[in-house]
Amino acid sequence: MLTTNPFALGAAHLPDEDDDDKPKEECGVVGIFNDPDAASHTVLGLHALQHRGQEAAGIVSCDGESFHSHRGLGHVSENFKSEEVMNRLAGPMAIGHNRYSTSGDKALRNVQPFYADLAFGGLALCHNGNLTNAVTLRRQLVQKGCIFSSTSDTEVIMQLVARSDFLSVEDRVVDALRKVEGAYSLVALTATAMYGVRDPHGIRPLVLGYLEGAHILASETCALDIIGAEYVRDVEPGELVVIDHDGVRSVKPFVPTQRRFCIFEYIYFARPDSSVEGTSVYHARKRIGEELARESNVPADVIVPVPDSGVPAALGYSAESGIPFEFGIIRNHYVGRTFIQPTQRTRDLGVKRKHNANRAFLEGKRVVLVDDSIVRGTTSTKIVQMVRQAGATEVHMRISSPPTTWPCFFGIDTPEREGLLAAQHSIAEMEKLLGVDSLAFISLDGLYRAVGEAERGSEKERTYCDACFTGDYFLPLADRNDTDTTQPKELSRLRGA
Amino acid sequence: MLTTNPFALGAAHLPDEDDDDKPKEECGVVGIFNDPDAASHTVLGLHALQHRGQEAAGIVSCDGESFHSHRGLGHVSENFKSEEVMNRLAGPMAIGHNRYSTSGDKALRNVQPFYADLAFGGLALCHNGNLTNAVTLRRQLVQKGCIFSSTSDTEVIMQLVARSDFLSVEDRVVDALRKVEGAYSLVALTATAMYGVRDPHGIRPLVLGYLEGAHILASETCALDIIGAEYVRDVEPGELVVIDHDGVRSVKPFVPTQRRFCIFEYIYFARPDSSVEGTSVYHARKRIGEELARESNVPADVIVPVPDSGVPAALGYSAESGIPFEFGIIRNHYVGRTFIQPTQRTRDLGVKRKHNANRAFLEGKRVVLVDDSIVRGTTSTKIVQMVRQAGATEVHMRISSPPTTWPCFFGIDTPEREGLLAAQHSIAEMEKLLGVDSLAFISLDGLYRAVGEAERGSEKERTYCDACFTGDYFLPLADRNDTDTTQPKELSRLRGA
Amino acid sequence: MLTTNPFALGAAHLPDEDDDDKPKEECGVVGIFNDPDAASHTVLGLHALQHRGQEAAGIVSCDGESFHSHRGLGHVSENFKSEEVMNRLAGPMAIGHNRYSTSGDKALRNVQPFYADLAFGGLALCHNGNLTNAVTLRRQLVQKGCIFSSTSDTEVIMQLVARSDFLSVEDRVVDALRKVEGAYSLVALTATAMYGVRDPHGIRPLVLGYLEGAHILASETCALDIIGAEYVRDVEPGELVVIDHDGVRSVKPFVPTQRRFCIFEYIYFARPDSSVEGTSVYHARKRIGEELARESNVPADVIVPVPDSGVPAALGYSAESGIPFEFGIIRNHYVGRTFIQPTQRTRDLGVKRKHNANRAFLEGKRVVLVDDSIVRGTTSTKIVQMVRQAGATEVHMRISSPPTTWPCFFGIDTPEREGLLAAQHSIAEMEKLLGVDSLAFISLDGLYRAVGEAERGSEKERTYCDACFTGDYFLPLADRNDTDTTQPKELSRLRGA
Amino acid sequence: MLTTNPFALGAAHLPDEDDDDKPKEECGVVGIFNDPDAASHTVLGLHALQHRGQEAAGIVSCDGESFHSHRGLGHVSENFKSEEVMNRLAGPMAIGHNRYSTSGDKALRNVQPFYADLAFGGLALCHNGNLTNAVTLRRQLVQKGCIFSSTSDTEVIMQLVARSDFLSVEDRVVDALRKVEGAYSLVALTATAMYGVRDPHGIRPLVLGYLEGAHILASETCALDIIGAEYVRDVEPGELVVIDHDGVRSVKPFVPTQRRFCIFEYIYFARPDSSVEGTSVYHARKRIGEELARESNVPADVIVPVPDSGVPAALGYSAESGIPFEFGIIRNHYVGRTFIQPTQRTRDLGVKRKHNANRAFLEGKRVVLVDDSIVRGTTSTKIVQMVRQAGATEVHMRISSPPTTWPCFFGIDTPEREGLLAAQHSIAEMEKLLGVDSLAFISLDGLYRAVGEAERGSEKERTYCDACFTGDYFLPLADRNDTDTTQPKELSRLRGA
Repeated sequence: MLTTNPFALGAAHLPDEDDDDKPKEECGVVGIFNDPDAASHTVLGLHALQHRGQEAAGIVSCDGESFHSHRGLGHVSENFKSEEVMNRLAGPMAIGHNRYSTSGDKALRNVQPFYADLAFGGLALCHNGNLTNAVTLRRQLVQKGCIFSSTSDTEVIMQLVARSDFLSVEDRVVDALRKVEGAYSLVALTATAMYGVRDPHGIRPLVLGYLEGAHILASETCALDIIGAEYVRDVEPGELVVIDHDGVRSVKPFVPTQRRFCIFEYIYFARPDSSVEGTSVYHARKRIGEELARESNVPADVIVPVPDSGVPAALGYSAESGIPFEFGIIRNHYVGRTFIQPTQRTRDLGVKRKHNANRAFLEGKRVVLVDDSIVRGTTSTKIVQMVRQAGATEVHMRISSPPTTWPCFFGIDTPEREGLLAAQHSIAEMEKLLGVDSLAFISLDGLYRAVGEAERGSEKERTYCDACFTGDYFLPLADRNDTDTTQPKELSRLRGA
Repeated sequence: MLTTNPFALGAAHLPDEDDDDKPKEECGVVGIFNDPDAASHTVLGLHALQHRGQEAAGIVSCDGESFHSHRGLGHVSENFKSEEVMNRLAGPMAIGHNRYSTSGDKALRNVQPFYADLAFGGLALCHNGNLTNAVTLRRQLVQKGCIFSSTSDTEVIMQLVARSDFLSVEDRVVDALRKVEGAYSLVALTATAMYGVRDPHGIRPLVLGYLEGAHILASETCALDIIGAEYVRDVEPGELVVIDHDGVRSVKPFVPTQRRFCIFEYIYFARPDSSVEGTSVYHARKRIGEELARESNVPADVIVPVPDSGVPAALGYSAESGIPFEFGIIRNHYVGRTFIQPTQRTRDLGVKRKHNANRAFLEGKRVVLVDDSIVRGTTSTKIVQMVRQAGATEVHMRISSPPTTWPCFFGIDTPEREGLLAAQHSIAEMEKLLGVDSLAFISLDGLYRAVGEAERGSEKERTYCDACFTGDYFLPLADRNDTDTTQPKELSRLRGA
Repeated sequence: MLTTNPFALGAAHLPDEDDDDKPKEECGVVGIFNDPDAASHTVLGLHALQHRGQEAAGIVSCDGESFHSHRGLGHVSENFKSEEVMNRLAGPMAIGHNRYSTSGDKALRNVQPFYADLAFGGLALCHNGNLTNAVTLRRQLVQKGCIFSSTSDTEVIMQLVARSDFLSVEDRVVDALRKVEGAYSLVALTATAMYGVRDPHGIRPLVLGYLEGAHILASETCALDIIGAEYVRDVEPGELVVIDHDGVRSVKPFVPTQRRFCIFEYIYFARPDSSVEGTSVYHARKRIGEELARESNVPADVIVPVPDSGVPAALGYSAESGIPFEFGIIRNHYVGRTFIQPTQRTRDLGVKRKHNANRAFLEGKRVVLVDDSIVRGTTSTKIVQMVRQAGATEVHMRISSPPTTWPCFFGIDTPEREGLLAAQHSIAEMEKLLGVDSLAFISLDGLYRAVGEAERGSEKERTYCDACFTGDYFLPLADRNDTDTTQPKELSRLRGA
Repeated sequence: MLTTNPFALGAAHLPDEDDDDKPKEECGVVGIFNDPDAASHTVLGLHALQHRGQEAAGIVSCDGESFHSHRGLGHVSENFKSEEVMNRLAGPMAIGHNRYSTSGDKALRNVQPFYADLAFGGLALCHNGNLTNAVTLRRQLVQKGCIFSSTSDTEVIMQLVARSDFLSVEDRVVDALRKVEGAYSLVALTATAMYGVRDPHGIRPLVLGYLEGAHILASETCALDIIGAEYVRDVEPGELVVIDHDGVRSVKPFVPTQRRFCIFEYIYFARPDSSVEGTSVYHARKRIGEELARESNVPADVIVPVPDSGVPAALGYSAESGIPFEFGIIRNHYVGRTFIQPTQRTRDLGVKRKHNANRAFLEGKRVVLVDDSIVRGTTSTKIVQMVRQAGATEVHMRISSPPTTWPCFFGIDTPEREGLLAAQHSIAEMEKLLGVDSLAFISLDGLYRAVGEAERGSEKERTYCDACFTGDYFLPLADRNDTDTTQPKELSRLRGA
């Protein structure tokens, strides 16, 4: 059943098709070991993580001998609703994956988890993140005779494991991961053990949970909550967790380095009812709103969130500023992926298809709009216009993130700098473009304060990845800097399935 | 694209499959006359009214000569997404319908609008409401040789129009409606005119709008907003509105009687961004919350809405009581109609699949839960339990409607009295059953005050239908009282399509 | 599983999509009473009658109280393959229908059997044939307030039964059929009895069978064979057969008139393994070939059937003439309804997509091609050309029917006279158009001899309908001659479902 | 459109689901180079070869730069009917494949052609046949780190090509094929050339054709006929044909050995309108029937083919013996893959669902039934019983192949010896089991005579593979003899897609 809540508070919505004005998280992972309902619980966990990837979902289970797989385009609830599918996913261990993908490679062959029969037996594997040297590694592997069946960077890891000279699965996985660079929170399954790894910087989240003898890995705690599992701890940056019938064993196979968790998980990606890295996401968002109110308060009559993701920060802003909070904009939730194409005349009706102004709260008022981020700025412009048409006398926009000025290479889909409004324009220019009386973003230090740090600090002290605001990538970007023009730019010459 | 807003404020959600603990609105209607995008705008209007009926949707358009129809089970966005379908729905006039139906007659043949070739030409027809003498009329018509192709009460109206001895469409429609009893807001279309009628009591809503030469009929104003149309006025109880190329003409063909608008539309059914009978639904709900706080306030630390429909009343309660409002319960929105059947073990995880407690806001707190109504009470029990498990020291439940103690026969799907918790139990018993420290419903007079009356008043003065709280049905219930046991109770002996 | 037999002998093939050069039978019917497997056996019977109608199929069963229905577009095997559907079709009685329809009214609402709740209870009804005054009757009924839910002539019968002033089902059915004109073999079902009727002339076939206590009605005997039932007798022209738990009762409610069975059933429509009116269809076709050889033999080296329907006549021709029979043309059976649209270049490859010449049997030979009929002549032209390209020195065409010069109004879909090659051209002209050295059709008397008559005889003696060859329609054609131009020509103003 | 020809002459039918009593050909291949309609013509060619594999079909085309692929389960006409699919298959080169597969590995991942991005660019590849050392090679490759994405033996060839140390595509393909053993007729495509290879013994067929500048490879000539292409020659055993813009080049990279073409292609597999190895299949079948009549004639009244594949031999038998040929058994062609499951009572009706006896030709007659082969004998038993029930006084069965006593390892799906009737029983026993008055198979020498040889001859002279009759496999069967029990018997531990 679909929902059309015209108001909503949380940031963790499933983006609409036309939500092209928001960054997109690329994946969510779940793994369950030693659970009689392993596949069902993986489905529920993936469902709770649906906001991290809506384009495809897959599960591989194992009964100790054979592996069982089902993967499909679309939502978790669509792909795993049939009893036949669920019966097929037998066994007490399973790993699963939600995928968001950039257009062009939506093919089923790219849907994770990947599975391969290796020399030691079967291996299933999936991850959340993005490798920054995947293209370079792939090219080398093809020269050596490797056949790739997808264009996913996950398959690079699989091929490296397959060709590793080490004997044990654990050593092969470590051998493979030492060759890759970038962000990854990886879950793998053999017939006897489950593995969880976070990259040395811990850029993407991964938590460990427990439910009646079963050990669980998941991107966020909300995937534990939905199945009634208890949160044990976060997997640590650079940690390899090995789960088998002897329990949970921890290995630290990488050279220790600085923790750099993605700060945007707090601003927008994670579900508000999750805790990541030990902090409640909802609380963090309220605190960001409070900081924002302290930094850039303005005399006003009403605080109005831009639905849905601006709501918690707007509540925080309202609490700190004392200005009343109201749902002044209501969202018409379009349900279903595709919908009739509007005629030009209908198109001119514009943003109304998506948002409806609650005139009673806006007319004659000085309005503070609170949103989480500005990417291209297209939607913001329409919303400001709608609020003015509803009779607002002043419109002030407050953004609960610093200006987004750099693309992400660590697992988030964002435009290049040319497409980022704040990378191309000054605050004053943006105020004009958006049509607001004032525009303010939270400061970097303010953001760090809201998530519990004193300030952003020097490069050495910095504990978050804030590259999308600063361009501080702190990792080599091999594929990005690749200048080999003798090779085709596409990962595959094959079009189609 | 689906939404999984884990919080939500509005009451106008699309009920989940397992929302069996809420009453269900039975229909929404839209009609558009003289609009080059008649069908597209009808789709958008129906989409805005999706909360009034999710099981089927249909549209009949007319190009002045031929009629074009498309009807399907499921949501508006699923049924009308194809270009081919939309191209087929040609012409500047269209009427559309969203349907909720009780199980058993979900067949396509019952999906409105209905169409028939009558002596004068084509007629399409749909309504929101429920006729209370439909079975009796149907039986008489079958004896006269009428063949029914559905089990819908709308077809009774169609057959009466077909057999009317009057000549003009207007006279035939009035002739037919004079024979029926119950609640209806009806929209009809011929090749030259559109008709809108509300039953003499005006039980269900119907509004008139205008957009660049086009006249629009719709159940709620949110259907006007979505296409940028202007709200003109509500169609009046007992009014027949005739819309043709000469404009809008009003007829009052029925004996005038008392206005008795469904008060539950304010409490739960209508979308919060709609105005019905001239009053903002969102405002009404906040005022109900305020009245509730005045009537039955209790010392507490936090006001927590039961998502999604308790949110506006909780905001009103919080504002009036001064106790802080927090989203202490988060809803896991299940998307997709069907989902894997849980195993027994998974089932025991219970309400967690649907709601997640925000422990940080509940632990050690005295909690006031605000919900809109209690029907069977099954969900409420689970929620209270969950809130206690999250550490609440006290749980007080406040309901923004009076106790629901009688079934509705005027277009809402509710259980019989045996299934209504409040019809079977005292407040004290319910407190025990639900496991709360205290339970309070808004008083009838308090509810009337919230919607702008001084009090409920005597039978003569009463301007709302409150039968579900009082059993005051104010209309004969012919089918209900039918004791003819020589006839099959089913409307049709046919099973299947 | 589909078949692509490159050769085939029988006439009873399912026409290809592009078989627009053959007349099309419009229906097949089956009814079974008192059989524990009523629905399954109806499915099998309809499957055996698939050649009589491929566009839709439906079944209504009855368990003595409720009726159960399933109808769908497409083939029998597609519509009734699911266990769920078959379980639903409960009860020891069922009637079923295969439908061919002219394009434009392929909608599901036209798929038979039709069902209605009438004053006396439920009635299901279907027929094979065509009423010649259906439009006239329909118009009168609409004026009286009848609502039609289809454009099928079967519904006219149903409405007449519904409005009949008689009390018993039998009397009502007779009352209705006395008002209709045309060809019909009808099967009807109530909760207690099954009815079978052939029109007074017996234009379309209907046989009675028996299987372990069950009585069966079917269009052809092959539907009895497939379920192992025994053939009892043909229902007689003008006979109403009433089957209930007292057995089979025969009524003759119509004024007796001349038997006029459709002679084209022998030539092309019926399955070769059926017996109709007591005569083996396959034998009849062989005898037609023998007559043809006697009437228009020509010196030749090889007799080659045009696949598939020319095969039995070609065998007869070969036997009579002593000229060897060979499969000189092989048919590429296209499977699946739709197929890629050819490019112009591919289109020029023409008939080869459908037929392949067996060069070894044609090169240097004088060839007699035997086909069953020529309608438009388009396919014949291509086949002759192909045979010549394969090296035939002479091509003689022999047709096992007289020239088709008039359209059928009794249940077969044929072009109007403008579209019938033989109605527009002399034999000599056709020889030139088709590119053959000689062309001969069987004579009318020859055809009558082949089916066991001495000759065609005078109008009084004539026992077959041969209107498509002679224009002798022997019945008023009310709809055909209708000149009321104040009414729309379409049966319904509704487009779509 | 489906066909239900109740008679049919050819052997090249598409087997029914329940045709488990016939051997199944495993594949058909087509390749087209330098044709503006390459993909369309490949579709047509595959369609003509549908009898060689009905479970899946795929095409890979190339536009000189990118490759375009579409593969699907089911028939050619189903998989390639959409315009969107055909538009996607751009470019003047394409290869395609029809697949029959043993149950269990029907997954899409096994559908050919396979494609891989190799060091030199893209390569697409498919074959007809069966490698007898595929499992052994696969195991070695996995140990070296190869990841297989299917369980098909074709991927073994692809992996060998990928890892070959040679540089040119031609050298790599030869290098790979020198490592494999068994039967294969292979077609491969790069961005600049197409390759065709037959294994050194030429076990499976492959022909070369030409159409207006385009070069074509196909399993049988009927695939050339359908697109109007001219037959050039058969690719020779052990020949590698390289087709590029310089034309056709022939290479003979293997040690020359004896030609051993599959003689069963003449008996049953190939389409009767094809010529294979220069001989018309239809002629060969008639000659087999003639030989059979000479070898084992018996006094009788009528020669009746078991439809559909017994027809040509029956015609030959009739011509030689002078006993009249009649279609005494008619086949009810079941259309659609699945069909309702019969009840026990319905099941007892048995073979009638599939065949119908033409009583008029059988009653009181001495009948010779002609069939092409006996595998398990289940269907034959039922047919004999049916013919007897129809009144035949004697039933003699004549089989146009020698007794099938050994399984095939070269690309045909047959039971093991335990499942082969003739491997378990003497002629006398079989006569009793089948219930016939006499049973005779054609002799091996008779069969060789029918295909143009003087006799079977010594091992050195033998030019056909007749292993299914003799067990003379003439090749090592590495996988068959593999006794490594430390490895799982399944090719993959993965179940599902």
